[in-house]
Amino acid sequence: MKTYIDCIPCFFKQAIEAARLAGAGKKAQKKVIAEVARILPDFPLNLPPPIMGKMIYAAVEKVTRKSDSYQKIKQKSNRMALAVYPKLKKKVKKSSDPLLTAVELAIAGNIIDYGVKNSLNIEKELEKILSEEEKAVKKENKAVFDYTHFKKELRKAKTILYLGDNAGEIVFDRILLEEIKCRFPEKEITFAVRGRPIINDALAGDAYFCGIDKLARVVSSGSDAPGAVLSLCSPQFLRLYRSADMVISKGQGNFEALSKARRAIFFLFMAKCEVIANHVSYQIKSSRSCRVGDIILFYHHIEKEGKTAAS
Amino acid sequence: MKTYIDCIPCFFKQAIEAARLAGAGKKAQKKVIAEVARILPDFPLNLPPPIMGKMIYAAVEKVTRKSDSYQKIKQKSNRMALAVYPKLKKKVKKSSDPLLTAVELAIAGNIIDYGVKNSLNIEKELEKILSEEEKAVKKENKAVFDYTHFKKELRKAKTILYLGDNAGEIVFDRILLEEIKCRFPEKEITFAVRGRPIINDALAGDAYFCGIDKLARVVSSGSDAPGAVLSLCSPQFLRLYRSADMVISKGQGNFEALSKARRAIFFLFMAKCEVIANHVSYQIKSSRSCRVGDIILFYHHIEKEGKTAAS
Repeated sequence: MKTYIDCIPCFFKQAIEAARLAGAGKKAQKKVIAEVARILPDFPLNLPPPIMGKMIYAAVEKVTRKSDSYQKIKQKSNRMALAVYPKLKKKVKKSSDPLLTAVELAIAGNIIDYGVKNSLNIEKELEKILSEEEKAVKKENKAVFDYTHFKKELRKAKTILYLGDNAGEIVFDRILLEEIKCRFPEKEITFAVRGRPIINDALAGDAYFCGIDKLARVVSSGSDAPGAVLSLCSPQFLRLYRSADMVISKGQGNFEALSKARRAIFFLFMAKCEVIANHVSYQIKSSRSCRVGDIILFYHHIEKEGKTAAS
Repeated sequence: MKTYIDCIPCFFKQAIEAARLAGAGKKAQKKVIAEVARILPDFPLNLPPPIMGKMIYAAVEKVTRKSDSYQKIKQKSNRMALAVYPKLKKKVKKSSDPLLTAVELAIAGNIIDYGVKNSLNIEKELEKILSEEEKAVKKENKAVFDYTHFKKELRKAKTILYLGDNAGEIVFDRILLEEIKCRFPEKEITFAVRGRPIINDALAGDAYFCGIDKLARVVSSGSDAPGAVLSLCSPQFLRLYRSADMVISKGQGNFEALSKARRAIFFLFMAKCEVIANHVSYQIKSSRSCRVGDIILFYHHIEKEGKTAAS
């Protein structure tokens, strides 16, 4: 997905929030703003937003000389998500379609996103996720929900590449991975995390802490952008990405990075801003347009040679 | 009021909207953004936001070579506000305190503000104003409402300087001016408009079109910023400003420009963003903090030498 002009005010918002979180005073915050303002005019808008995201957080690091300022938030998110894990498992167990509930929970977990929603109150958001999942069951919150294709491809796939997104959220991914593993123990699942700290995106340490390694091989994408931008990923990751039978991509950042991918991908995320909602509406050409807050399960796949389409 | 760091993302939002309204294509929009980004790092944050506003709209003019791109919107706002004028008059007539209702309507009319709320739907907003006025009667929508002082100073004042804000909104000001003139026909009222086109701010032509000239002498402040920044005002206006017994200032822009004024001013506006709401809470030191959407009648006045205070 290209960067829209309307992403620009949001870039500055993110820069301010990240600078504050890194403990920057007003002068340092203004320096960060000046740095982003310096980069911006030369930034090609045909690049996806996560590349600008990477540059913004590099500017924050440069000015504040602090890397991984979201570390504590990530740890807290992991701990708190793990605390609700038994509740989530109960929900799945009680469901008439446990896989569907696990998919919905995994998407609802995408609410934990500091890049888009700053100053997040994790407690409140977790409560919301549980109620969101309730709402998600209803059709009206789904502009697109390719569950039938998801089940079909899942059955067929031998190897699955799962692209993780945020810390905390990966506990919700674990629920889905457990459901998959329970049905299909033979599936080879790889779980990819970012290559280095960026916002509250999950790293290998988070994946281990949240028990993902019991279900999947944890690898780094090599990307230091808040999304799997292929040009920033490692050759090892690219091999996995190209050879996997099925790719499950979590989060808005991974969607932004891969929405034009030349392979089939299942995108699972919540539409968290107007720009994304409009872009999804445009890309999926669904009967009803996408709204902010929508639960998205979008099967992006190749219809004919070189052409992609919504299912 | 100084410019807060959190105003910066909003500056870019305003620049994008203004560029679009001036018919700028994507390339020209990006040029405007680049121009704002170029100016921004050197902009001293101790200056009030309307100065940046002036620079943003100058950048839009420079790139698009169009001045007064809000002209049609201003004309439409005036016409539509005039169309509801009889309804407003009825409301005031039926009120047990017509002056209070007129004050509330004048403040509610401040909702017509393209600088803050872009892509405004005038019809909807006018409907909202009428219902807002209903709500405004309730105490909970008023973080500060110095009506008693307003009545007292109004009675005492011989000369009143009324600082207008937006086109369309001035019809609501007219209602208040009529109420004042009806009670106190002897008052000498001067109504100040901007010196040249800036966003949808009212100019002399709008004031004449909306019948303000029947009630007050219409003058230009000389300022081409979206707020009466004194350093940008004409010497003639400054004389009026200094000598007036009472100054009534409408709108957020005039508040931003004059919140630290060394004279008494009644500020009438709606708090339209978090930054203003927080600033008002800080400045008025009221028992309850100001929220976005609040109706504000704030008596800024000098307590002791050089010190200002809320009433």
